[in-house]
Amino acid sequence: MSFTLNDALPVLRATPQVLRAWLENLPHVWVRSNEGPDTWSPYDIVGHLIHGERTDWVPRLELLLAQGDSRPFTPFDRFAQFRESQGKSLGELLDTFTELRRSNIGRLESHRLQPSDFDRRGRHPELGPVTLGQLLATWVAHDLNHLGQIARVMGRQYTDAVGPWVEYLPLLGTRR
Amino acid sequence: MSFTLNDALPVLRATPQVLRAWLENLPHVWVRSNEGPDTWSPYDIVGHLIHGERTDWVPRLELLLAQGDSRPFTPFDRFAQFRESQGKSLGELLDTFTELRRSNIGRLESHRLQPSDFDRRGRHPELGPVTLGQLLATWVAHDLNHLGQIARVMGRQYTDAVGPWVEYLPLLGTRR
Repeated sequence: MSFTLNDALPVLRATPQVLRAWLENLPHVWVRSNEGPDTWSPYDIVGHLIHGERTDWVPRLELLLAQGDSRPFTPFDRFAQFRESQGKSLGELLDTFTELRRSNIGRLESHRLQPSDFDRRGRHPELGPVTLGQLLATWVAHDLNHLGQIARVMGRQYTDAVGPWVEYLPLLGTRR
Repeated sequence: MSFTLNDALPVLRATPQVLRAWLENLPHVWVRSNEGPDTWSPYDIVGHLIHGERTDWVPRLELLLAQGDSRPFTPFDRFAQFRESQGKSLGELLDTFTELRRSNIGRLESHRLQPSDFDRRGRHPELGPVTLGQLLATWVAHDLNHLGQIARVMGRQYTDAVGPWVEYLPLLGTRR
């Protein structure tokens, strides 16, 4: 699939409601269990998505629109959620993410981007030259990547409990 | 995590609403795209989950309760959805899955299972001896496995569109 706003926006809009439907009524143990040392729980992942809304996608889009590739994007802090989520309930995080995503989609729409804008160039601090279209496609794919991670982190809590069925459940078998 | 009904039921209850929140308002292309020949789209996956509600989890539970390991479970048809979903909209499939899951959770609860029941034995046609607890844990893990698959199938539609960011998105990189 090549990138279009018509395809991308419904996925970006769905993510907050997917997270709420999935996580809001789960026992604490599902939300807070990870895959071992230095891995993330669903709670950590929601915090990471919040930090992305605050510092990554739309701020980078607006830097690219304002300055092209003359200034690299600010590096993203992949561990900010461990500091910023402290003391917050999952419900608070879900509310925050829902509101930030709503607001960021509004900001994206306010720029009235045309397909010709998707080739405009920015500069990633590690990856080098990137396009506006690649940035927006990555916003979508990053949501999906972390929804997949939530499924895997939760599923792997039952690696032992499923007994011989583990053979039929590829998600439980290996860590990615 | 060892298996308990208190942990398992909220995950089983959430799945229909997760699927609806995720897929209901997406453009057709997301719902119907797969990962290539002989792979499944999100639409196919919902059909597969429906077939599981009809023929797998609760029917196997009830066979196990009635006959123990004296009779193997009926083999599961992993391709039934290609026949059974034909001509149905995604909305119809989501409605069907929601209703079947609701009804199956009711049937599960009606058996008033105790932790001591989780060791009762059944027989899988390929895997051999399994326990009731393993069967129910697999119902949960199977949901999560296929939610992870939906994330991956959708994400991989943007493998090219994300450009150099593919390096940071493990879900897009390899097929599982």
